[in-house]
Amino acid sequence: MSALRFEIEKTCPETGARAGLLHTAHGTVPTPVFMPVGTQGTVKALTPRDLQHDLDAKIILANTYHLFLRPGHERIERLGGLHQFMQWPRAILTDSGGFQVFSLDSLRKVTDEGVLFRSHLNGDPHLFTSESTVDVQLALGSDIAMVLDECLPYPTTFEAAEKSMRRTIRWAQEGYAHYRRREKGLHCALFPIVQGSMFPPLRRACTEALLELDAPGYAIGGLSVGEGRELSQEMVAVTAPLLPQDRPRYVMGVGMPEELPLYVAKGVDMMDCVLPTRNARNGSLFTSEGKLAIKQARFMDDNGPLDPLCDCYTCRTFSRAYLRHLFQAGEILFSILASLHNIHFYLNLMRGMRKAILEGRFPAYLERCAGSVVVNF
Amino acid sequence: MSALRFEIEKTCPETGARAGLLHTAHGTVPTPVFMPVGTQGTVKALTPRDLQHDLDAKIILANTYHLFLRPGHERIERLGGLHQFMQWPRAILTDSGGFQVFSLDSLRKVTDEGVLFRSHLNGDPHLFTSESTVDVQLALGSDIAMVLDECLPYPTTFEAAEKSMRRTIRWAQEGYAHYRRREKGLHCALFPIVQGSMFPPLRRACTEALLELDAPGYAIGGLSVGEGRELSQEMVAVTAPLLPQDRPRYVMGVGMPEELPLYVAKGVDMMDCVLPTRNARNGSLFTSEGKLAIKQARFMDDNGPLDPLCDCYTCRTFSRAYLRHLFQAGEILFSILASLHNIHFYLNLMRGMRKAILEGRFPAYLERCAGSVVVNF
Repeated sequence: MSALRFEIEKTCPETGARAGLLHTAHGTVPTPVFMPVGTQGTVKALTPRDLQHDLDAKIILANTYHLFLRPGHERIERLGGLHQFMQWPRAILTDSGGFQVFSLDSLRKVTDEGVLFRSHLNGDPHLFTSESTVDVQLALGSDIAMVLDECLPYPTTFEAAEKSMRRTIRWAQEGYAHYRRREKGLHCALFPIVQGSMFPPLRRACTEALLELDAPGYAIGGLSVGEGRELSQEMVAVTAPLLPQDRPRYVMGVGMPEELPLYVAKGVDMMDCVLPTRNARNGSLFTSEGKLAIKQARFMDDNGPLDPLCDCYTCRTFSRAYLRHLFQAGEILFSILASLHNIHFYLNLMRGMRKAILEGRFPAYLERCAGSVVVNF
Repeated sequence: MSALRFEIEKTCPETGARAGLLHTAHGTVPTPVFMPVGTQGTVKALTPRDLQHDLDAKIILANTYHLFLRPGHERIERLGGLHQFMQWPRAILTDSGGFQVFSLDSLRKVTDEGVLFRSHLNGDPHLFTSESTVDVQLALGSDIAMVLDECLPYPTTFEAAEKSMRRTIRWAQEGYAHYRRREKGLHCALFPIVQGSMFPPLRRACTEALLELDAPGYAIGGLSVGEGRELSQEMVAVTAPLLPQDRPRYVMGVGMPEELPLYVAKGVDMMDCVLPTRNARNGSLFTSEGKLAIKQARFMDDNGPLDPLCDCYTCRTFSRAYLRHLFQAGEILFSILASLHNIHFYLNLMRGMRKAILEGRFPAYLERCAGSVVVNF
C-alpha cells in the first residue's frame, strides 16, 4: 500500500480546481492546502501548539538542506525522526535540498553525479546526489519527500534548459529506483519535480518522462525564480493538465495571496512559501483590506484590530497601535503575533477556496478575486 | 479606601518570612512574589496568554522610562492604559524610570529639580521630576507606581550617599504630595524607595524619613549595582525590620534563584529581575540541577527534557537536543521556549517558598538551600 492516498471530493467543472483529502501516515490533509515553511525544524516564531491548535495547520514543510547541515539528518534519525524532534505530530513534506543548494551561487558545482556545494555555515564541502537526498529525507522521516532536481535561474537559453531538464529526469529516475529499494515500511511518498524553465515544450517533455515513474504525486518546480507572474501561471497551465488527475499536484515556492486562487483554478492542490512568515517578521501583514505595513505612522494611535475580519489570536486580542509599538521596539512578540496572523490568513484563504469548490461556487469566488489584489471571502 | 490591601496569612516565627495576599485593582497577588519584567510593554518572547494561562503570573513589571519614550505614556493613556494596550488583565507595577535614567551615564544631569537626560533612541532631551514620574505612571494606569529615586553606582562615599539619600527623600515627599492631589479614583498605589548605598546608618535614616509618608508599601532600592551579594543581603537585613510589618516590602532588581529565599527569609514580599528572560535568550537556563548552558555539545544528542522535574510546556514537550538545535540555529522559538521555562522556574520557586511558609516549614526549606546554588524543592 502506498504511503499516501489522495481522494478527490469534488472537481470544479468550469476550472478544474479540486477539493480533496490527502491521507498521510501523519493524518489527513484537506486540499487545496498551503504548507507553512519550517526551514530549520520550526515554523519561525511559532510553537507547534500554536500551529496545531490555533492555526490548525495539517502539514508543514521542512528544508532538507538546512537540517542536513544542522543538526544533521542522522542525528535527527537517532533522536526519533523529525516529527519527534520538533514535536510536530502531523504531516511533514521535505524538499530535496536542491533548491537551497542552487541558491548558493558561488558555493556549488553541478555534475551529472550530483551537486557539490559548500556549507553556508562552515564552508565544509558536501555532495547531494539523487540517491543521497532520498536517504536524507528517509532519515528525517518525511511523509512526502522530493527528488533532487536542478533549478535554473531565469532567464536561461532553451539549450541550457533542455540539458538541465534531462538531468532532472535522470536524477528523478535514479532517485526513484533507490527509493523503491529502500522505502518499505517507511511510509514516505516521493514526488518527482517537473522542470523545463519557461519553455512549454520542455515542461511537456519533462512531465511525460516523469509520468513513467507512476509517482503518487507530482510537483512543478523552477518557478518564482525571477520570471513574471504571468509566466509562472502559464507554465502551470501547460503542465498541470498533463499530470495524472488522481494524484496531488504541488507547485513549489508560491506565492502571494492573490496568486493562490489562480493556481488552484489550474488544478493545483498543494503550495508552500516563506512569504507569510518572512513578511510577518518584516512588518508586512496580509489583511482582508490588502497588505499593511505596520510601521506606518498612521497606526500609532489606531486602537482597532489588525484585520477586523480576522479571528486569529492576534486580531482577536491586540490593537494595531500595540503591534506597531512592538515592531518599532524590535520585540520578539511582534514576530510571534505577526507570524500567527499571516499564517492564519493563508490557511484561511485555502479553507475558503476549498469550501467554495465543495459548494460548487468556485467560479464565482474566482470572479470576485479578479482584478483585485485583496483576497477576502 | 487604599488602592492596595495587603493581608498577611502567615509569618514564619523563626525567620520573619511572610506569606500574604496583595489585593490590587487587577486581582490578588499571592506573596512572596517574583514579578517578570515586561520592559517595553511585553515580557520578552511571551504572549500575555502564555503568561496568564501557562505561567499563571499574577503581576508583572513595566519600565516607565521605556514606555515614556516609546510609544509615550500619553498615547498609552489615550489607548486605554497599559493593561488595555498590552492586553494584560492582571496587576502591573511600574518603576519610576529613575533606575534606567541613571544607567544612561553620559546622557544625564541630576539636580534637585530632577533628572535631565537624553533619549537613547533619538537624543531628545527630557526631564524626569518627582512629580512628572508620578504623572507618567498614573497615565500608564499602574497598579503600583514607584517614586523617583536617585540610584548611585557602587562604591560611593558616605558623603555622596548621604546627599543623594536626602534628595531621594525629598523627591519621595514631593512625589507623594503630588500623588495625593491626583490619585483619587485611579486605583494606583505609590511606593517610596529606601536608598543609602551600602551604609546602614543611611539606610536607617532614609527608612525613618520615608515612614512618615505612611505608604501602603515600601521598596528597597539601590541594590544589584555591583556590590557583593553579602552586602545586598546585609542592606536588606538592616532595612526590612524597620519597615511596617503590615505593608508589602519590595526589593528591586534581584536576583539569582539561590538569592531569592534569602530575601524572603528577611521578610521581603516582592522581587523582580530581568535575569530569567535575559538569560533565557542567551541560552542560560535555570533547572533543578543548576544552571545549564544549552549550547554545550553534550546536549546535542540528549533526548531528555530540559529539566526532568519541571512541568512547563517546554519541559513537557521538547528535548534538550531540540532546544540546543534551536539555539544554535538562532531560532525565535528558542527564545520563546527558554523564556517560558525560566519564568516558570522563578514563579514555581516562589510558589514553593510560599507553600513552605504557609505549612510552617520554611526554616527546613531554607536549610535545604544553604550551601547550594541549586534551588529545587
